[in-house]
Amino acid sequence: MTVLLALDAGGTSTRCVVVTPAGECVGYGRDGSGNPVSVGVDAAGRSAAASAAAALDAAGVDPADVEGVTLAAAGVSAQTPLEELCRPLRDLGITASPDFRSDLLATFFAGTYRDTGYALVAGTGAAAIRVEGGEVTATADGLGWLLGDDGSGFWIGRRVVRAALADLDRRGAPTALTAMLLRELGLDGPAPRSRDGRAEALWRSVDALYAMRPVELARFARLAFEAGGDEEADAIVAAAEDALVHTLGAVALPGVRGPVVLGGGTVALHRTLPVRIGAVRGGDGEPPEVRAVTDGVVGAVVLALRDAGTVVDAAVFETVRGTLATLR
Amino acid sequence: MTVLLALDAGGTSTRCVVVTPAGECVGYGRDGSGNPVSVGVDAAGRSAAASAAAALDAAGVDPADVEGVTLAAAGVSAQTPLEELCRPLRDLGITASPDFRSDLLATFFAGTYRDTGYALVAGTGAAAIRVEGGEVTATADGLGWLLGDDGSGFWIGRRVVRAALADLDRRGAPTALTAMLLRELGLDGPAPRSRDGRAEALWRSVDALYAMRPVELARFARLAFEAGGDEEADAIVAAAEDALVHTLGAVALPGVRGPVVLGGGTVALHRTLPVRIGAVRGGDGEPPEVRAVTDGVVGAVVLALRDAGTVVDAAVFETVRGTLATLR
Repeated sequence: MTVLLALDAGGTSTRCVVVTPAGECVGYGRDGSGNPVSVGVDAAGRSAAASAAAALDAAGVDPADVEGVTLAAAGVSAQTPLEELCRPLRDLGITASPDFRSDLLATFFAGTYRDTGYALVAGTGAAAIRVEGGEVTATADGLGWLLGDDGSGFWIGRRVVRAALADLDRRGAPTALTAMLLRELGLDGPAPRSRDGRAEALWRSVDALYAMRPVELARFARLAFEAGGDEEADAIVAAAEDALVHTLGAVALPGVRGPVVLGGGTVALHRTLPVRIGAVRGGDGEPPEVRAVTDGVVGAVVLALRDAGTVVDAAVFETVRGTLATLR
Repeated sequence: MTVLLALDAGGTSTRCVVVTPAGECVGYGRDGSGNPVSVGVDAAGRSAAASAAAALDAAGVDPADVEGVTLAAAGVSAQTPLEELCRPLRDLGITASPDFRSDLLATFFAGTYRDTGYALVAGTGAAAIRVEGGEVTATADGLGWLLGDDGSGFWIGRRVVRAALADLDRRGAPTALTAMLLRELGLDGPAPRSRDGRAEALWRSVDALYAMRPVELARFARLAFEAGGDEEADAIVAAAEDALVHTLGAVALPGVRGPVVLGGGTVALHRTLPVRIGAVRGGDGEPPEVRAVTDGVVGAVVLALRDAGTVVDAAVFETVRGTLATLR
């Protein structure tokens, strides 16, 4: 039996699926971060190989029978030493050279078998793509926490923290986010005033937050959604949605229609985002299908099948989803 | 002759003045950064001692004749090991223990001999203080680039860069800032398109900017002022002024009147800020005196004199300014 390997290398974990050319998923494995930028090329390569070894083992397939490898990943650029990244896979006995595909494209194909449409991803970062004929034909944002990622988890989390600290500093509006942030930091409790007339909790929060890596502020994005009804929190969420709709709009073309796939860790928290996107994109006729996905590995499998020449239609897509669901 | 030492320890340089109790400046010295947070306690202590040695040498004064030392600095907190910071000064033969004062208070006294009023500082960071009876009675912001510093040089520089990159990414409005940023980064020239349909200059800019420390984005603040007339640039500058006026408003009390001293590297670039502050603070009567200062060391000298019991009136203040001017 010859098989294909589909890898979805994310910042948190690397997942690998062994799939037959007909779309039957027969093995699944998982390991640590596969993002070469965040953990380095060596560790990313080792995660890929470990998840592949587990998936092949689960499927009872010999590495020599792997006919194609597709690796969907963020953080792979022209500067990535691909040879080094792939060495651990080759050391397993996998001779096929990997095809590298964008994680954004994998998100798109996690939501649809059609080959034209859009994906909008908002997790720690944020980006949108236009897909035509199965290829990315336009990309917007995804420039990272400092320079872009408008409307992302970091973008929201940074505003949450700044709003709470401005409140503590008595130069911002009172907001429920303040108590929520202090609880999150383990600093809730009595609030004595320090020598300069400012809350002790302010300085302790500042110290705790600067001790983190900046991008970790993304973890406070959740608070903006949980504080629903708070004016400051609602304004942050609404502004994030505006930004995401704007980013999607930057890649949209009136003549290119198709599903809009929403992915990433914070996208699901935006309750009104699907409706707003439906309204905006549907201005010239039928509203588009808007579908939220939670699992990019389905898209990596679709990409592996497409790379191997399989025509992925509605039936194959359902086979992938159905057989994959039984493996986990 | 007994003398006082006044040190102004900033992020860029440490300046020291030898001053008589009557306010005559008789020696001046300068060395590297004296901010213990940015360069470490050891290097900050060495800069202080080197600038003091140079100033004493210029004045022809023996270290043993130093009766008082006042050190105005940012970045000195309850956590700073003062013993360690001061050791190089003691090793010079200076036995007096330093009084530590806020750099914001030094900015205030760089602009006035009066003991009540306000200071608003905007350089890389931004903060405001209220001063009553020569002491800081309220502080707003100054929380650093990630968590606060609304309207600061970093705040402006970050927006300049994001606006230019959004333009390059074809999701932001066209702005003159784009060409200015590319020139600044040495990336101006022909603009080929890269594989994903985005400008090559976008990726090269992103790489160049992430190679910097985040706080270095402050250096691009200047572009917003130089692009006067550009809609995006003008909006950034106006929003920064709004933020600075708001921060000053957070420490202002109707009953506490006095001069507003403006300091820091970007404050002088805001042409309409003094007028706006005059209008806001003068709402209940006479407009306040608004005075921009460029040199915090004058304020360190005033603090040293006040710490030594000298009454600093208009005449003493003019003596300080006049004699200091002849030394540099």
